[in-house]
Amino acid sequence: MNRICKLFNIQYPIIQGGMIWCSGWELASAVSNAGGLGLIGAGSMYPDVLRKHIQKTKKTTDKPFGVNVPLLYAQTEEIMQIIIDEGVKVVFTSAGNPKTWTKHLQEHGIKVAHVVSNSKFAAKADEAGVDAIVAEGFEAGGHNGREETTTLVLTPVVRYVTAKPLIAAGGIATGRAMLAAMILGADAVQIGSRFVASDEASAHINFKNEIVKAHEGSTHLAFKKIVPVRLIKNQFCNDVEDAESKGADREQLSKLLGKGRAKLGMFEGDTENGELEIGQISALINKIKPVKNIISDIILEYKTAKEQLNHIRYNF
Amino acid sequence: MNRICKLFNIQYPIIQGGMIWCSGWELASAVSNAGGLGLIGAGSMYPDVLRKHIQKTKKTTDKPFGVNVPLLYAQTEEIMQIIIDEGVKVVFTSAGNPKTWTKHLQEHGIKVAHVVSNSKFAAKADEAGVDAIVAEGFEAGGHNGREETTTLVLTPVVRYVTAKPLIAAGGIATGRAMLAAMILGADAVQIGSRFVASDEASAHINFKNEIVKAHEGSTHLAFKKIVPVRLIKNQFCNDVEDAESKGADREQLSKLLGKGRAKLGMFEGDTENGELEIGQISALINKIKPVKNIISDIILEYKTAKEQLNHIRYNF
Repeated sequence: MNRICKLFNIQYPIIQGGMIWCSGWELASAVSNAGGLGLIGAGSMYPDVLRKHIQKTKKTTDKPFGVNVPLLYAQTEEIMQIIIDEGVKVVFTSAGNPKTWTKHLQEHGIKVAHVVSNSKFAAKADEAGVDAIVAEGFEAGGHNGREETTTLVLTPVVRYVTAKPLIAAGGIATGRAMLAAMILGADAVQIGSRFVASDEASAHINFKNEIVKAHEGSTHLAFKKIVPVRLIKNQFCNDVEDAESKGADREQLSKLLGKGRAKLGMFEGDTENGELEIGQISALINKIKPVKNIISDIILEYKTAKEQLNHIRYNF
Repeated sequence: MNRICKLFNIQYPIIQGGMIWCSGWELASAVSNAGGLGLIGAGSMYPDVLRKHIQKTKKTTDKPFGVNVPLLYAQTEEIMQIIIDEGVKVVFTSAGNPKTWTKHLQEHGIKVAHVVSNSKFAAKADEAGVDAIVAEGFEAGGHNGREETTTLVLTPVVRYVTAKPLIAAGGIATGRAMLAAMILGADAVQIGSRFVASDEASAHINFKNEIVKAHEGSTHLAFKKIVPVRLIKNQFCNDVEDAESKGADREQLSKLLGKGRAKLGMFEGDTENGELEIGQISALINKIKPVKNIISDIILEYKTAKEQLNHIRYNF
């Protein structure tokens, strides 16, 4: 049996990325009901809101699900207590030290995965005793590593330094890419962008439509001087690119960013002035579908690719 | 039979990237003798030098080999005439319009492949009637596309717009990555960095040693305002990064670049002040080896990965 399926008690080794403003209870429970692992994105939720989303997810699925917690917020302690109190079984942590929370969560019966962007952090996560590691490449949407290592390079490099169950992320939206990631050393994949373009994602329909329209070159890794984040190129992103090209410093960029840009773009649908966090693989996403169909598509693509390989002409 | 093997009349679908200062007759003939397709990199050669390299390659292998010609130089016409006169059978073109030379070369019995970094250029190359398309991702060493699309994303996107034989490039140095690229839609792979770290590459030993030492984050995509190029981070590259961060314009960057930096670094071995063009996958390259061993390693890795997949635990 696949190690990630066993670890999280799921049918398919497909994790849905826990994304701000996109992955509430509806998306998480739909993914879990379809055999993957749904994750609620706590990053854009006040503690009380998160509690409601967890409770709704519990009502709408009897399958395992998890919560993604970026460790950079002041309210992390309160959030972790809610997760424990509500009996959530899986937590994905990112943007912080995996030592801080891993043991504590595990003592409450929670499986912990940590997101990294290089092998040094992967080794630290391994040392911290996490149950699984997510290696996320440069092509991924949203927050991103500083070294710009792509998934094709990162997956085998991280595989080399840890024996833990490994989840590849960034640039993956199809069953073919899932099979490719597994060949490179991953046990499973985390998929973000393709689930934003689902009926169940809480993203605004205008944002979903932008994903469908996107091609290669439609995204840009912005704000490298603050925290790198991959965005769809719109008026706001172009303004940031211009400022960066002219040498804007952290302070100037922070001012340009202002407050609430992500909510404005992704949740409220202002596709010109808001921040639209999405991955490069949006170039390959051409339709908004129900989660159930997305997962069955991916599994069919995976099986077809694997079957074709068995009969492949490349025998040397 | 594999379409690329058939097209170029080679044993393995492995193309050695035609790289400046690294791939002369010795590397090209070694790769061709080992069953891949060796390419002489004309980009760093005066026409007379290229003619000598072609003649030496013909003396040292009876297998097919080719020449890589970046179309941005004034002497392209002279170079193409030499290639035709010397009876070379394969030309890879890049950095220019594929319509300019494809038909003319084909009329002289030459197979033509063109390098692209997005699907729009792939469609144009298809229209121009090239025999094969190379899709090169962001993680590749040396000159690079402006849109920063990674190989994992670019390969299926290009596969979608053309039915031509497709060669994936960027981030590929192992048989596992070769198999992954084929699953994503490629017929073959082009490998650069791993062949620079070979006994036969004309790169300076100091440069080869830097490749062996490199890890993720050791390279940087510099000079985006002129022509993006991936370099190892050394004193020179850090100076460029600093200047870019402060908003240096094209003129200032051109002045900083100066003349002969690539030769200084890659061929003369000044690893601090020279330009060292290499891919992100250098993180995975840990030894300088003979070409023959590199190719047999890759084929063994490929076969092992394919065999493992046949017995794989991921059956849903």
